[in-house]
Amino acid sequence: ATTVSGQAKKLTIGLIPADGIGKEVIPGARQVLEALPNIGVDSPSFNFINLDAGFEYFQKNETALPEKTLEIMKNECDGALFGAVSSPSHKVAGYSSPIVAMRKHLDLYANVRPVVSVASEKDFSQKNVDILIIRENTECLYVKQERQTTDESTGLKVAWAERKISEYASRRCGKMAFEMALGRDKFRQNIPLEKRFWKGKPKVTIVHKSNVLSITDGLWRETVRVVKENDHKYDSVDMEEQLVDSMVYRLFREPHYFDVVVAPNMYGDIISDGAAALVGSLGVVPSANVGDKFVMGEPVHGSAPDIAGQNKANPIAAIRSAGLLLEHMGFHQQALHIYNAVDEVLRRGEYLTPDLGGRATTQQVVDAVIKLVQ
Amino acid sequence: ATTVSGQAKKLTIGLIPADGIGKEVIPGARQVLEALPNIGVDSPSFNFINLDAGFEYFQKNETALPEKTLEIMKNECDGALFGAVSSPSHKVAGYSSPIVAMRKHLDLYANVRPVVSVASEKDFSQKNVDILIIRENTECLYVKQERQTTDESTGLKVAWAERKISEYASRRCGKMAFEMALGRDKFRQNIPLEKRFWKGKPKVTIVHKSNVLSITDGLWRETVRVVKENDHKYDSVDMEEQLVDSMVYRLFREPHYFDVVVAPNMYGDIISDGAAALVGSLGVVPSANVGDKFVMGEPVHGSAPDIAGQNKANPIAAIRSAGLLLEHMGFHQQALHIYNAVDEVLRRGEYLTPDLGGRATTQQVVDAVIKLVQ
Ligand SMILES: CC(C)[C@H](C(=O)O)[C@@H](O)C(=O)O
Ligand SMILES: CC(C)[C@H](C(=O)O)[C@@H](O)C(=O)O
Repeated sequence: ATTVSGQAKKLTIGLIPADGIGKEVIPGARQVLEALPNIGVDSPSFNFINLDAGFEYFQKNETALPEKTLEIMKNECDGALFGAVSSPSHKVAGYSSPIVAMRKHLDLYANVRPVVSVASEKDFSQKNVDILIIRENTECLYVKQERQTTDESTGLKVAWAERKISEYASRRCGKMAFEMALGRDKFRQNIPLEKRFWKGKPKVTIVHKSNVLSITDGLWRETVRVVKENDHKYDSVDMEEQLVDSMVYRLFREPHYFDVVVAPNMYGDIISDGAAALVGSLGVVPSANVGDKFVMGEPVHGSAPDIAGQNKANPIAAIRSAGLLLEHMGFHQQALHIYNAVDEVLRRGEYLTPDLGGRATTQQVVDAVIKLVQ
Repeated sequence: ATTVSGQAKKLTIGLIPADGIGKEVIPGARQVLEALPNIGVDSPSFNFINLDAGFEYFQKNETALPEKTLEIMKNECDGALFGAVSSPSHKVAGYSSPIVAMRKHLDLYANVRPVVSVASEKDFSQKNVDILIIRENTECLYVKQERQTTDESTGLKVAWAERKISEYASRRCGKMAFEMALGRDKFRQNIPLEKRFWKGKPKVTIVHKSNVLSITDGLWRETVRVVKENDHKYDSVDMEEQLVDSMVYRLFREPHYFDVVVAPNMYGDIISDGAAALVGSLGVVPSANVGDKFVMGEPVHGSAPDIAGQNKANPIAAIRSAGLLLEHMGFHQQALHIYNAVDEVLRRGEYLTPDLGGRATTQQVVDAVIKLVQ
């Protein structure tokens, strides 16, 4: 659906705010995209389509992800921005997470999550974190093949879930990790050595638990290893491994030890929330669900029902996710422009939401970013 | 096998140092047990049996857990102390983790992991952590029912693992959590309010990911909830829930928010390593594998091949695990005696191993504890 009007590409972006603070931060991110000035001849302009999904939608319509939302994304959108989804507080028949379904239906096979220290006068973050987490996004326990049986002798319930790890998914996710390690290294060359967090060779850390799951995590580990071993292109990238438990421990003890981290779906989910704690707040950590044909930006935080509707949610994660969306659609310069504006707002520390110890509203932070973006 | 000789019980303890630093810290813990003075009439004396297991043993004998070790534990021992096991750095045919097998064969259904701030002059630990993690110890992905298939159309490998959650295991593990919450509360009554980390009602936090695993984690969550709802005994215990990703985030942001945390096997594994990072080192965090008939103490740390054989491993986790072993065998006074000696050594900070920023050897720390125990 990418069209050329005059010199600027017109990108159609699906907006799925979904639940809770998703409804506040996604409109914020949209405003930032709309404020982007022309940077070079290929600067895009935007066309937005609001799309339904989420737990609140489910409660009224018996589905959390209407067919129409998927169809419009597939047929009319160049990319999308997703907000957050609420989790039912008890078991609800027929409900199934729309974000997990979207990742699958759009084949968004890697969830790219950069976690970077907040450079700020205020001290709410470890100063030496610059990690890119690549989370496999289509399988592991997220295939949701579950069943319940009954133990004949006791009459008690027994439930089972399948965990799937395929060579196919592990390989393309591993490839993404090595590619991004090279890309980060290239990008760093423009930064003076003393200002770089990461000064060494690029490195990919493979997370697994093959001491227990020798077949599934064994396949994951071996497949990712082979991606590097079979391709001289990755000779300059170091490779190491961490067991998932020890990974979480080291993440907190030595965050500066990690560059790119690649993990199966569930471990990646846990590790990225953990890493967010290192940089002061989940409210600043973005992600992109990346496939070969489609990208969907998504803040890592949840729908935060406790603060929803109060104009105090941190829009930074959503704004950065809009940047990641642009980056993965090939608009590097525009993405960098957004990242730099966000970094500067955080550095100044004048407009910070309560999660970062400030008193600014969502809209004030959005406005502060827009001022620097324009 | 508990016998009475004179007034003192004689306890037979199986010692399984297994691999790496396990061979240094388990003998250290043994020395502390041997040094325990008579405290009251039911003070035990000890008889130790050295038992084989581990990856190094596997390399010579083609099994990581000889039948004999299991038999002697079942027939001759009152309890056991396990060291640590090395993980093969690549796939090794026929190898299977002996610790996972022992937990299963001895039906040690709960892994009890207290994570407590190190009170010390030196500042290597958050000051407000006092969490008891109860990890389900027999099922989840640890049932190790894995298989590998081939995708017909592509010829690529696909691997599957089963995750089992049963009402039976969830219930007894949940019950353990509420019991221990009451026990901790009772114990705290002896501590002046201003010196308590945790000042409120006892609380159990249930960890799950039922927004994705609605059947397995749904059963886990519901079963643990019902343990409290069906028993007025637990009326004084608060109950709340955390999704596992958000649990790890909050653990780092607000460790003082948690009292007792109960989790399925794999989440519990990850969370307890994470929590160890909050208290300065994995080298101070003990655990007990607890069943109705048998207890096995086990430091949470691994075999640390990088420092093995150098007399610099931290023996604190193993010593505390010996304390936990006594506690869960009913010898509360003796356990407390060990805990207090360890706390005092840490508080003084004179003898600390390198993981805590000191220069003491394993044996020096053991000796310092023994001096205070005698
Ligand atoms: C809402 C939930 C299904 C989701 C996940 O587990 O993937 C969320 O935690 C995330 O990280 O995007
Ligand atoms: C060695 C490994 C199998 C074990 C586990 O995962 O249970 C260890 O990490 C632990 O926490 O005791």
